[in-house]
Amino acid sequence: MASDSPAARDAAEPDRGPSVEALAAGIRAGDRAMLGRAITLVESSLPAHRAQAQRLLAELASAPGDAIRLGVSGVPGVGKSSFIEALGTRLTAAGRRVAVLAVDPSSRRSGGSILGDKTRMPRLAVDPAAFIRPSPSGGALGGVAEKTRESIRLCEAAGYDLVIVETVGVGQSETLVAGMVDCFLVLMLPGAGDELQGIKRGILELADLIVVNKADGRGMEAALRARAELASALQLLQPPHPGWRPPVLTCSALTGEGLDAVWAAVERFRDHLRASGAWEAQRRRQRLAWTWALVESGLREALHSRPAVVAIRAEVEAAVAEGRLSPAAGAARILAAFGRQQDGDAD
Amino acid sequence: MASDSPAARDAAEPDRGPSVEALAAGIRAGDRAMLGRAITLVESSLPAHRAQAQRLLAELASAPGDAIRLGVSGVPGVGKSSFIEALGTRLTAAGRRVAVLAVDPSSRRSGGSILGDKTRMPRLAVDPAAFIRPSPSGGALGGVAEKTRESIRLCEAAGYDLVIVETVGVGQSETLVAGMVDCFLVLMLPGAGDELQGIKRGILELADLIVVNKADGRGMEAALRARAELASALQLLQPPHPGWRPPVLTCSALTGEGLDAVWAAVERFRDHLRASGAWEAQRRRQRLAWTWALVESGLREALHSRPAVVAIRAEVEAAVAEGRLSPAAGAARILAAFGRQQDGDAD
Repeated sequence: MASDSPAARDAAEPDRGPSVEALAAGIRAGDRAMLGRAITLVESSLPAHRAQAQRLLAELASAPGDAIRLGVSGVPGVGKSSFIEALGTRLTAAGRRVAVLAVDPSSRRSGGSILGDKTRMPRLAVDPAAFIRPSPSGGALGGVAEKTRESIRLCEAAGYDLVIVETVGVGQSETLVAGMVDCFLVLMLPGAGDELQGIKRGILELADLIVVNKADGRGMEAALRARAELASALQLLQPPHPGWRPPVLTCSALTGEGLDAVWAAVERFRDHLRASGAWEAQRRRQRLAWTWALVESGLREALHSRPAVVAIRAEVEAAVAEGRLSPAAGAARILAAFGRQQDGDAD
Repeated sequence: MASDSPAARDAAEPDRGPSVEALAAGIRAGDRAMLGRAITLVESSLPAHRAQAQRLLAELASAPGDAIRLGVSGVPGVGKSSFIEALGTRLTAAGRRVAVLAVDPSSRRSGGSILGDKTRMPRLAVDPAAFIRPSPSGGALGGVAEKTRESIRLCEAAGYDLVIVETVGVGQSETLVAGMVDCFLVLMLPGAGDELQGIKRGILELADLIVVNKADGRGMEAALRARAELASALQLLQPPHPGWRPPVLTCSALTGEGLDAVWAAVERFRDHLRASGAWEAQRRRQRLAWTWALVESGLREALHSRPAVVAIRAEVEAAVAEGRLSPAAGAARILAAFGRQQDGDAD
């Protein structure tokens, strides 16, 4: 066989797992086990696996991308898992297929992440129309984001109607997730005023939809108060999409109350953005922004690993911090050190 | 004379203006004309002038930096000029010295800027204890920010107690100004709810102090309503400094009502931050952040001027936008093009 044929490549592949072609076929057929293996491949940092992953994504590039990508964020304790399970089971009962991914930068290989944790979504975990995957482990947040983006595309190629990306409020994870989904939903506790001060900087302005959870029993009154306060605050802030005022809803993952309204709002948002072309425009904008974010991150990495820069960085920072060196002069020194010595050059 | 002596350098300087030593002496003496010439020097892009400017800043580096740097932002029409004039004249009457600078990226060399415009602050313009300077003209916003930062240091060396940096809501100018001042004040119109929707994304979370202007006559009621709504919204947002809840005040630049309270709030903010060491820590953080912002901007410029990158950029962006190329693959191509050819190498 020709040495560049798929069969030859498969024979040469160190990985004893399924070939790229087998994975692609399995994903197109909606095979959950194959999807899981494909995501595992995408999460691997081994160069051989990265190459296979890129081939798989290229193979699936023509698959329809008309799923809804929904980001779900909220502080620990707000009830994200219960909410996702309640919403997810409602949708699978209505004939849809739902995937749940997660971005959790604190996830460690041994400990696992509490996000995308099947034990916290027991019904959805055994639902044949659903697919749940914990966050990729640790590493730089940008790396986790890249793997999640690729996993989203795999889930879409596998025919899921809704791909939920769960995130918890750590560092820049909300901003990264908002940059990879169509609709960003923020889940909130039924507090009010001071109690709501747990909201992270900038997160209210990322939201396309806000849902106050635990609106049941004694919590109902507090939930309605929170809803009113949030709606009022949102009037003063700029939403992500002009022309769409993010609704503030209440729901109870426990009783199921309000979940239909939440889903209806998500669909109304999608219809609104599709009507103006903003849906596809946003995806294009996200792809381009992510590309340049990766370029900048690559540049930064090249800079910070340049020996001449490493040698002077601490002293330049100290001089600038103490006011002995102006920021412009400090930056000039660092850029000069970067330019002086190129990778691979003899010193 | 030795060729490296100040006298020799002055003799060699192409600029027929005052020497660096004369400028430094004039600034230390509080001479407004010398301060103006020094700022003109700082604003010049000529390499010889840049070198002189850096020497001047180094010469003045040991001057006390205990002025208050106050950023003042707000939409056009909110009354920034009247507010700054009213506050400024009140402070000079109390024996303080007040400088007013501006960051206006739309400023053009011929047209000038409406910010820092002496004709809009006629009393302050002729006040011997005040110094007003329009924004540096055009060019990249980062360049304008760098020149403004250096001008702030010149004003401090000249003994001004308060350096106001005015900005209007264009692009990232608020973020840049917030990154160079101690206290960021947002001036607002006395509208409410829908009328207040002119607020730019992220600006409420930059504010250390919010002042609703035009609280006089018929506007009083609307101003009080706006104040209540803003205070309520701020409860839900994270302020720049933990432990300092940004007050929302009303004032009238016309009648002078509320201005003493505004200044008292600025001083209370300064005392609060100084007590915890946060005042100096913020300035250090700002210097370092600005240094790395300049480094990144230099890297970006090097990247975008690399011929190999210019050659492929449009086609890579189009491929990514259309989904034919993944963001990771697109970024890899651009980084490879950057690494392939170094400045000064033969092609």
